[in-house]
Amino acid sequence: MLNFSKCHSILITGANRGLGLEMVRHLLSTPERPKKIIATARNPDAAEDLQALAKSHPEVHVVTLDVTSDVSVNDAVQAVKSIVGADGLNCLINNAAINIHCDLDTVTRDVMMKTYESNTVAPLFVTKAFLPLLREAAGQGSGMGIHRSAVINVSSILGSVQLNWGEMGAPKLYAYRPTKSALNMITRSLAVDLEAEGILCVALHPGWVRTDMGGADADMSVEESISSVLPVICGLTEKDHGGFVSYNGKTLPW
Amino acid sequence: MLNFSKCHSILITGANRGLGLEMVRHLLSTPERPKKIIATARNPDAAEDLQALAKSHPEVHVVTLDVTSDVSVNDAVQAVKSIVGADGLNCLINNAAINIHCDLDTVTRDVMMKTYESNTVAPLFVTKAFLPLLREAAGQGSGMGIHRSAVINVSSILGSVQLNWGEMGAPKLYAYRPTKSALNMITRSLAVDLEAEGILCVALHPGWVRTDMGGADADMSVEESISSVLPVICGLTEKDHGGFVSYNGKTLPW
Repeated sequence: MLNFSKCHSILITGANRGLGLEMVRHLLSTPERPKKIIATARNPDAAEDLQALAKSHPEVHVVTLDVTSDVSVNDAVQAVKSIVGADGLNCLINNAAINIHCDLDTVTRDVMMKTYESNTVAPLFVTKAFLPLLREAAGQGSGMGIHRSAVINVSSILGSVQLNWGEMGAPKLYAYRPTKSALNMITRSLAVDLEAEGILCVALHPGWVRTDMGGADADMSVEESISSVLPVICGLTEKDHGGFVSYNGKTLPW
Repeated sequence: MLNFSKCHSILITGANRGLGLEMVRHLLSTPERPKKIIATARNPDAAEDLQALAKSHPEVHVVTLDVTSDVSVNDAVQAVKSIVGADGLNCLINNAAINIHCDLDTVTRDVMMKTYESNTVAPLFVTKAFLPLLREAAGQGSGMGIHRSAVINVSSILGSVQLNWGEMGAPKLYAYRPTKSALNMITRSLAVDLEAEGILCVALHPGWVRTDMGGADADMSVEESISSVLPVICGLTEKDHGGFVSYNGKTLPW
């Protein structure tokens, strides 16, 4: 039974669609859900499905956040601070990302840079900005997990350098893949730095999912992915700290 | 005995100082050396040590190359084409890189982006640009190695996500580390794509070296590093294709 009752607040970036939106939806269908579900989107006015959920569920707080802009990130931190108050933030899920399809022939420097900005640099700077709120929550608990304080970076099995071989090497994605390997490294560095403060850091592979990003041929529906991912997130402990966890709970190689 | 006699041409980026310059110097002290040693620098006029080597050794061709500029890369390809002729290019060593020291507190988005541009994006686009010359050489040989056609990306053990833990996790380097993990991924993708054409691709850790980049406290002198690295490069075979090789010949974990 999914139990998020000890996670008072959770923040999900890129919650306007795809996996982020489904996380919000699935949490709302869970009896033991976080008291505060903060769902961010670059342009909340265009996030109709999310707005509809927020209208009927007072737990959902929609906050504007462009993860690539320091000004926007700082504004979002202020907004979230007033939502969570002295409890701080228990769980930050860096989910927002882009994937511009390109192979060795079609990749450009601009696409490489833009993808790194969104998929690697942004999660680091969102995490840095929310650290005071994550520390606030970490100071009020013990052990490690989403009951206390956690940073979950949504990575991808496509970011595994080791698995980029043979059949798994078929999707080229020259811009996307290295940004997820780099995000895995950032996750690991954060894990080293934040361990002493009791802030859990993990990289998470949500499966290959039929979203705008994953495409129509992917293995899993968003519902299948998130119904596996949320129990994994819920069960994270110090054993998972600094790790690369798959939607089925297995550890992936870097 | 170091034998580069079957590698007719080798190109080393960032050869104005540090490891790149030492590779040129060490190759010149090797009796069985490549016929054409192409040493690139962003600003050859300022590369006094390299120019001095070129003046006394006709094998050395100094070529202007700013790895972050497509115009400069394309000009360099034309220059190298006229140097290597119909033999093509046997070995491309993507050595040029930057390391701006920063930890979780001091890292900025700009430094992250600039480091990715130089350390990850540039090696990919230099490789793309030189592919016609690498293919020319690959078409004239068999097996895999620098006798035929090879791309060697100078990476770092600091790019190993797995080893970023405990004592090895001490150097923070939030900007540098993820660019080398990402370069490892690019190396692996290139290995998948170029295998059928017989172009060897490897990521190489040259050791922790007392250069401007490595700092005064590093383990090894440039001479110690390169006198280990060059035999490793010389001995690369299809067994190493797509791998992460250390200066001592051992394989590193991603």
